[in-house]
Order: sequence, then structure tokens, then C-alpha cells
Amino acid sequence: MNFATRLDNVETSAIRELFKLLGKPGIISFAGGFPDSAMFDVEGLREASQRALQEEPGGALQYGATEGYEPLRTQLAAFERAKGVTDIEPHNLIVTTGSQQALDLLGKTMISEGDKVIVEGPTFLATIQCFRLYGADLVSAPIDAHGVQVDRLEQLIVQHKPKFVYLIPTFGNPSGALLSLERRRKILELAVKHQVLIVEDDPYGDLYFGEPPPPSMLALSREVPGSREWIAHCGSMSKVLSPGLRVGWLVAQPELLAKATMCKQFSDAHTSTFAQATAAQYLKSGRMPETLRNVRQKYGERASVMAEALTKELGDAIEFTAPEGGLFFWARLTAPGANAGEFAKRAIEQNVAFVPGAPFFAKDPDPATFRLSFATADVEKIREGAKRLGRAL
Amino acid sequence: MNFATRLDNVETSAIRELFKLLGKPGIISFAGGFPDSAMFDVEGLREASQRALQEEPGGALQYGATEGYEPLRTQLAAFERAKGVTDIEPHNLIVTTGSQQALDLLGKTMISEGDKVIVEGPTFLATIQCFRLYGADLVSAPIDAHGVQVDRLEQLIVQHKPKFVYLIPTFGNPSGALLSLERRRKILELAVKHQVLIVEDDPYGDLYFGEPPPPSMLALSREVPGSREWIAHCGSMSKVLSPGLRVGWLVAQPELLAKATMCKQFSDAHTSTFAQATAAQYLKSGRMPETLRNVRQKYGERASVMAEALTKELGDAIEFTAPEGGLFFWARLTAPGANAGEFAKRAIEQNVAFVPGAPFFAKDPDPATFRLSFATADVEKIREGAKRLGRAL
Repeated sequence: MNFATRLDNVETSAIRELFKLLGKPGIISFAGGFPDSAMFDVEGLREASQRALQEEPGGALQYGATEGYEPLRTQLAAFERAKGVTDIEPHNLIVTTGSQQALDLLGKTMISEGDKVIVEGPTFLATIQCFRLYGADLVSAPIDAHGVQVDRLEQLIVQHKPKFVYLIPTFGNPSGALLSLERRRKILELAVKHQVLIVEDDPYGDLYFGEPPPPSMLALSREVPGSREWIAHCGSMSKVLSPGLRVGWLVAQPELLAKATMCKQFSDAHTSTFAQATAAQYLKSGRMPETLRNVRQKYGERASVMAEALTKELGDAIEFTAPEGGLFFWARLTAPGANAGEFAKRAIEQNVAFVPGAPFFAKDPDPATFRLSFATADVEKIREGAKRLGRAL
Repeated sequence: MNFATRLDNVETSAIRELFKLLGKPGIISFAGGFPDSAMFDVEGLREASQRALQEEPGGALQYGATEGYEPLRTQLAAFERAKGVTDIEPHNLIVTTGSQQALDLLGKTMISEGDKVIVEGPTFLATIQCFRLYGADLVSAPIDAHGVQVDRLEQLIVQHKPKFVYLIPTFGNPSGALLSLERRRKILELAVKHQVLIVEDDPYGDLYFGEPPPPSMLALSREVPGSREWIAHCGSMSKVLSPGLRVGWLVAQPELLAKATMCKQFSDAHTSTFAQATAAQYLKSGRMPETLRNVRQKYGERASVMAEALTKELGDAIEFTAPEGGLFFWARLTAPGANAGEFAKRAIEQNVAFVPGAPFFAKDPDPATFRLSFATADVEKIREGAKRLGRAL
């Protein structure tokens, strides 16, 4: 069978082999990107789904508008307003089938074969493949613990004239990095100056452990004249409430939103109205603040234990910045020529798993890097896993 | 903003203007393609969603496999086996976010810019746009009341060497046509002879009013040696159970299924596990046969009333074949030079709506054709709507 040429652009085997090994009994996994199922508010979601079917069974079970179920758009706009996006209205966002679909729609809507797109190095693996399937030629912008390096980013924008710049500014995957307030402002100014779209992917912004992070770039765009129309913002219920609902959203200027909606019509018609009505009832129920307090506290504790345990067990052999939120540690082997792929294999032998960092780079991978998630292991397992990492080293 | 060139391939304004008028108070609509919300088994779905959350809350709310939630794949394989696909196993299908996504994944997986794809003339509107977004050059194969004309189809296959042939063999949208058993066999033989993929879109096959239709081409492929690997089959829960779940499925040979799964990973990661677990519990509950009996009986009654009323009110001014299943009448104005678009406008003035047929043709539209759905109006409204159509004429 003769497949589409776009499939030649993607390579998915890199970490698939490793994931196959995760079924090994007794393994402690720091490899996943999942939230912890034990934290799901099952009772709250049960009640919400019941109310959805009781109050408007037609709406929850029938075809719905491609833009999204209106009561959910209303709740999501309120959710964003509470986070400082004071001027957002329901019609400024569309509901997507997880934020993965928001990325897919941005690719479909914006990227022609050979178009340049700037991403962080490293960035979310599924974003790399998603954009490449639409023919994107990815350019990698370097980051540090404060997010993407703005001077380099401007140089790359000038050099490559990209279709857009894709960033995970808040507790990035895999980097865990937090883009500083100053850099956020500068990037919004760059967007206006160079008339370039900035895509802000923000699935982790609510998962902070101490002080709240700086406002999202979407919220901050109010302070930088002309920048709002150059921001597309992807939100998600997956990390804070439930990934199984597949409820995400995309905020963008009207023309881009209309084009993305048209593309969505032919991608999946609309996001499950049953899932949307459930999410709407959940947000309306007022349980979200308590749910957020709970996940912040639990993940914060795990992150803190992991930082301590890594330092204790691995010492100077690795370097990392302890994240202030999100689900990930991004670490680097300090020995010259060290390879995290080899380290991952030895770790599996010691019954502990993580993901090597190289596949997260669209260009010029750093083979010494790796990602550790503290989300699904409890503190005892995190301590034991770190010990095993020490033995593997 | 500079959008992707693929957006230049689509045109969605054709019937959008008409749909805007449907909000007019007192209008009787034969325009939609929706099932009737009043027939949804709300209580059965409520129980199913509760059991899903009780029995395996982690599975229903967590990230899931891109291929689909295993208990649902098992139920869907059994559902297909009961319809004569005796040799299907759960791993022969993947779950999609409605069958619209199965079409999208086939486009993404198979179609390169400029590839030929053969569709029926007329065919499903969203398929035309979906495939064009991937750069397809569509070729239109003529149909009659027994479905696509096989001799013409073979000529077009030889002439155009298409990437695939897309058919809705059973109670087509918009045609209502039923592909005969003889033609099904011949097309399977053509698939083997010319090594061409046949996509069988089958959302309406369970909605028959009298005798069951011939077996699906997927089921029939068992009898035509070598044909199974050239069949991709799209199924859907939308017309028989609930469109709001967005649960469809794609059956295909292993290599195509693997490529489609890879594409789905970057489209939406997976279909809502909450919706999938609900659908799995529903199928497991054993309520589906009664639900199918109910919708067959109700839609059958409406179709029969519509046939009678159209004949009574419009007489020789239109021609149509009464459908034996599905949701649609496909009709044609008999007066020379008649235009169904003009007729639709006059009908709106009389407070009755339908969809002109021209946009359903990928090439060479027949402007005298139009589509009427009997799904959402009760028999009294169908009679009154037909009277209004008579006045509009």
C-alpha cells in the first residue's frame, strides 16, 4: 500500500522501545507524562456527568456545535478570567479534543509544506511529530531554567521568518522550566514587532507548588499593546482534572479561530458533548479550587522529595533545577560524553525507568539529558527509585 | 495572518447561508443530518456511564491507548461479528472520535497533494472537504438507486489510479441508495484486480426498515479471496446510539491501521476514555438490540409517511426512490432547468427547509437535486412540511 508522503516526515520509534519495557513487574516508573489516577475527583465527576444527563440529555448526547458546547465555553472563559485574562468572552475560545487537538488544528490551519516553525529545544515530543506531519521544518530555540532565551529567539525569528513560535512557558514538558515575567513581556513585544504568532501551550500552569507563576502570556498580552492578536493559547483539563475527558481549548484572534473551527469540523465534527457537558457541570459545581489545592499539594510534596533524593543518591553526577510546578524534572549527566540512553538501559536493569532527553529536541539533541516524572510514584517509591538510579549510575 | 495553502482547497459557504435561516421560528426542518434526540436511550447511557466510573474509574478518566479502550474494542468486534464479520478480532479495529475522525485519519495517512480519490456523486459533504484539506483531487463516480455504477467505477479506477475509492454503500448520505449484493461482490473483485483500497463508510447500515440490507463489504470480503486487505471500514455509534459520545471505529489491514494509529496519536492522543468506557458498558448491558428495534421502527414509519406525503403533495414535479433505511430521501425536480437552490429559498418562505443537492457533488453538480431528512420531524410535521413544499413549488 502506498501511503501519504507526509508520513516520511515522522519517526516514532525513538522511545517506543523503551516504553515496551515498562510493563516489567516491580518497575518504578518516572517515565510517564500522566497525572496520578488516584488524585482524580471521581465522585465530583460522577455527580457532574449525572447532572449533565439529567438537566440537558439532548445537549449532552446529540451532535453539537464545532466551536464547543456553549455552557462549557462560558465556564472556560470564567476559568481564564479568574487567572487574569480579564477580557475573555466565551466566543474567544473553541473547545478541542484535548490540547493535542489544538496543536493539530494549529498545524492544519497554519503550516504549509516546508514552513518554518520555532520550538523550544527541548519541547513536547508529540508537538514535534504533529507539526512535522503538516510539513513543518522545525527550528530549535535554546532554553535555560528561565525558559527560552529571548535574544536567540529574536535572531531565529529574523533569520527564519517562522509561521509561528511554539512555547510551553510555564513548567515546560520536558524542561520543567518557568519563563520569567520579563521574558514573557519581551516575547510579546517581539510578536508585535515581527508580526509573528506565538503559540502558548499551557497544560501545567495551574500545577504550581508555592507562589503562583507569572501570568500566562495570554493574560499578559493586555499590557503589551497589539500583542493579543499574535497570541494563540492552548488550555487543558487533562493534568488538573482528567485526561480521559479529552477537553482542551484554544484561544485566538477571530480569523484564526474561525479557520481552526472549519478544520475541526472535518477532523472530528466536535468534541464529545457528553464529556463537554460533564466538564461544564464540574466547573459549575465549584469543586475545582479544592481539586487544584489537592493536586498542587501532592505533586509539590513529590517534587520536593525527588529533588532531595536525586541530590542524595546521584550527587554531582547529574545537574538539574528543581521545578516550581508541573510534572517533570529535566536533568543532565555531568560526566563528559555521558549518554542518557545508555543510562536508561542500565536503569531498567535496576527496575527504574525514565525517558532519555534526545528525542525531545527537534534539532541538535543533547544526549546527556533525561526527563523524570514524579507524578505517579508516591514518596516512598520516589526515594527507592532514586536509590536504584544511583545503583544504575 | 498567513494561513496554510491547504485551506484554499475548501469551500464551506455553500449551505452555511441556508443553515443560518433554520433558526426561523415555526420552521419544519428536513435539512439536518441528525438523529432524533427523543430516541436516545438516556437511562441506558446513564447506567452505563455510572458503571464505567464505578468499575474502573482509572480507565475511564486516565489517558488511554491511542488504539482505543480495550473493553470497547472487544465489544465493537463482537458487534461486527454479529453482523457477519465472523473473523474480526479486537486488534483489527481502532476506536476513532466519531467516524468523521476515521475519514480524517484515512486522509492524513493516505492522501498526498494531488492524489486522486474516487467518491460517489453525490457523497457526504464533510468527506469532500475532509479529503480536499489533504490535497485530494476528487473524481466523482455516478450512482443510481442501487448505488455506484460498477462499469463506470472500473473505468475511472483504470483512468485515474486513485489512492482509494470512498463509498457509502448502505443507505448513502445524501443518496439513500443501497448498493446491491451483486455490485458489492463486483467492487470487491475490482479492488483485488486493480489493487485499490475501498473505503466503506457505514454509519447507517443498522437503520433498515424492513429486511436487513446485504452484508457490509467488510463482511462480504470473506467470500472474495484477497479482498479483505483492500477494505477499510468506518463504523459509528452516532446514528443508532448517540452522536455526542463521538465513538466511531476503523477496521483495516494491520499496516494501514498502524499508520492511522500513529496519525491519531498526534491528532487527539486518543478518543475520550470516559465516552469509550460508557459505550463499552452500554454494549455489554445488552440494551442495543432493543434500541435498534426502536429506531428502525420509528424512522421506518417516518420514511413511509414522507414517501406518501411527497407523492401526494408534489406528484410528478419530483422524482425519488423511497429509501429502505437510513435518514434521507434524495429527490430531483423534474421540470427542465429546475433549480433546487431556488426551490429551497421559496420553501424557507413557506417555513419548511431542506438542503439543495449541488454541494454534495465533488464534480458536475446536478442543480435539480435535493436532500430531505425525515429523522427529526414527527409524522404530523412531515405531512405538514410536505404540504408547504407543495405550496413552495
